[in-house]
Amino acid sequence: MKVGAKMKHGGDVLSYEKYYKGQIVDYSSNINPLGMPKGLMKELKEYYSTIVSYPDIKYRKLKTSISKYLGCSKENVVLGNGAVEIIDNFAQLFNRIIVFLPAFSEYEMRGEVHGKEVVKINLTKDFKIPIEKLKSTVQKGDLIFIGNPNNPTGLRLLEKDLLNIYKVVRGKQGFLFLDEAFFEFCPKDYDSIEIFKKYDYESVAIIRAATKFFALPGLRLGYGCTSLDLVEKYNKIKLPWSINAMADGAGRYIFNCKDYIEESKDYIDNEREFLLNGLGEIEEFKVSPTDTNYILIKLLKWDEEFVFQHMLERGFLIRKCSSFEGLDDSYIRIAIKNRKNNEKLLRAFKELER
Amino acid sequence: MKVGAKMKHGGDVLSYEKYYKGQIVDYSSNINPLGMPKGLMKELKEYYSTIVSYPDIKYRKLKTSISKYLGCSKENVVLGNGAVEIIDNFAQLFNRIIVFLPAFSEYEMRGEVHGKEVVKINLTKDFKIPIEKLKSTVQKGDLIFIGNPNNPTGLRLLEKDLLNIYKVVRGKQGFLFLDEAFFEFCPKDYDSIEIFKKYDYESVAIIRAATKFFALPGLRLGYGCTSLDLVEKYNKIKLPWSINAMADGAGRYIFNCKDYIEESKDYIDNEREFLLNGLGEIEEFKVSPTDTNYILIKLLKWDEEFVFQHMLERGFLIRKCSSFEGLDDSYIRIAIKNRKNNEKLLRAFKELER
Repeated sequence: MKVGAKMKHGGDVLSYEKYYKGQIVDYSSNINPLGMPKGLMKELKEYYSTIVSYPDIKYRKLKTSISKYLGCSKENVVLGNGAVEIIDNFAQLFNRIIVFLPAFSEYEMRGEVHGKEVVKINLTKDFKIPIEKLKSTVQKGDLIFIGNPNNPTGLRLLEKDLLNIYKVVRGKQGFLFLDEAFFEFCPKDYDSIEIFKKYDYESVAIIRAATKFFALPGLRLGYGCTSLDLVEKYNKIKLPWSINAMADGAGRYIFNCKDYIEESKDYIDNEREFLLNGLGEIEEFKVSPTDTNYILIKLLKWDEEFVFQHMLERGFLIRKCSSFEGLDDSYIRIAIKNRKNNEKLLRAFKELER
Repeated sequence: MKVGAKMKHGGDVLSYEKYYKGQIVDYSSNINPLGMPKGLMKELKEYYSTIVSYPDIKYRKLKTSISKYLGCSKENVVLGNGAVEIIDNFAQLFNRIIVFLPAFSEYEMRGEVHGKEVVKINLTKDFKIPIEKLKSTVQKGDLIFIGNPNNPTGLRLLEKDLLNIYKVVRGKQGFLFLDEAFFEFCPKDYDSIEIFKKYDYESVAIIRAATKFFALPGLRLGYGCTSLDLVEKYNKIKLPWSINAMADGAGRYIFNCKDYIEESKDYIDNEREFLLNGLGEIEEFKVSPTDTNYILIKLLKWDEEFVFQHMLERGFLIRKCSSFEGLDDSYIRIAIKNRKNNEKLLRAFKELER
């Protein structure tokens, strides 16, 4: 593989192993640096034996556990083999897809796979949703994907903007899909699931995942809540048993790990501040504000490839952002990891200036 | 849930727990009674730690392992979150779907989900493919699903019939999808993967799974091989990371368990003979011949509901077959399990005659 080939996704350490002698630190995927909840390893051993049976095709216990964590009714819960399967299933259920660029590439991709028209709208210069443009575009039967916070920009909607967008989308009989896969890393300002409860989740879905915050990308567990009407449509097209037995088991455990959840939030808050301060000292970087556990950086002097190579030589895999439609080759994205690695990362970045 | 509601799939023990005081023995799903390969539990413990990372998005090591087991090139391998995801992805890639009834319900279901026309052809009275009917039906761009062995009939195509069907389908520019999820339970007559190698798998896919033979339905690992052209099309629409990290790991281990594989085949051969003999003594049953680890039974005196209830009261979950289009309520299907349970099952069936 050519180093520098466009990668649609981060986390592909295997493709770069040969370019660095030591262990590569993966700053290209945005996973909780504390790792999975402590007790989970022990729990998982008990779920091992369950893989000789099919998971409950209705995932009754899992849905109960998730509904308690999310604060919604279990009848409103939808499940997927990672959030990306939920994105895919929703893309199938609507006529047209609206995405705001730059965004997670799968919104557009899954629309295209299913032969849907995909309408692309650029975010404003400061990466906000252009509400007037949305208003003039959205039609009945449209599915509007919004990352909240958005990836790769790291920005979360303000509560008033979210309500405004919902009003517009619902008023035009569109459907708002809020991808909140990074929800727990964000400031405790509002909870969309709480907000939309009084609307019975009409015309809205809020999706989250064990992947990022619970550091379980290999487990594959995505979940969310939406209206009863959409749950029914969703379950009609959903593949049977798509959540594996270990994800089913783990999903009945992790949401009770309250200490881990609080500790992780505090940890990211501290490290975000530490990294933002350090990155702010690099004159050739324009660092975007972020509400979550990754940081978008505009490169003022180099291109992404130069910085990528420089960092790879020092054992860091970072995310080049020209693979995000709407960004050029002057952007990189980095995750927030543990202090030791964050310090090393900053030192490696500072060597760019020599 | 009403006992007796139509179930699209077997294995849903949870829905019936309340109707029997002890542990229900599940004869409704067709899993290797020896359980998973012995060493796998220990191996899986090592894969635990891998769930904190994304699986290799290209599944390089897994594909190498599978290609060795199947005897094809790794470039020809396709993967899925269970065989059912592969069925779903293929259904998306073709214009029209042809199924032979009765069959695994997901062939038709996945076609309908993706808005495809589904052409249904009845099997002959002795559950064979009506080749002349196929010949007059198949068109360019059709996807023909055939279970080999078929579910719920248990019959495997004769080699000459398979080649004949392939000739017809390929000649009309259709595509033959052989669902061989039960392959290892069958007689060692021929291997489709070996047969179609010389055609470079043009216009054919052969799909298998860890689910049934390796007794890992909760793990979710389906795989198969097809032409390079189809692999490329398949990977373009496939969801990223849809095989979880533990399935990725386990799939690099189980195919090396040669003793387990041989032992399982012998075990099923013996138990099949034992069960067929026992069932043959029940005058009100007409037992279908079977090439695999499940048996279709035509009820000459009772309906499926009566026998289902009778067996549930004795702790056995069997499969009612009227949920298979093409069969009426005079059919049941049972799995082949271990000797102790098979003996108990026969005794419970014989109590029907009193």
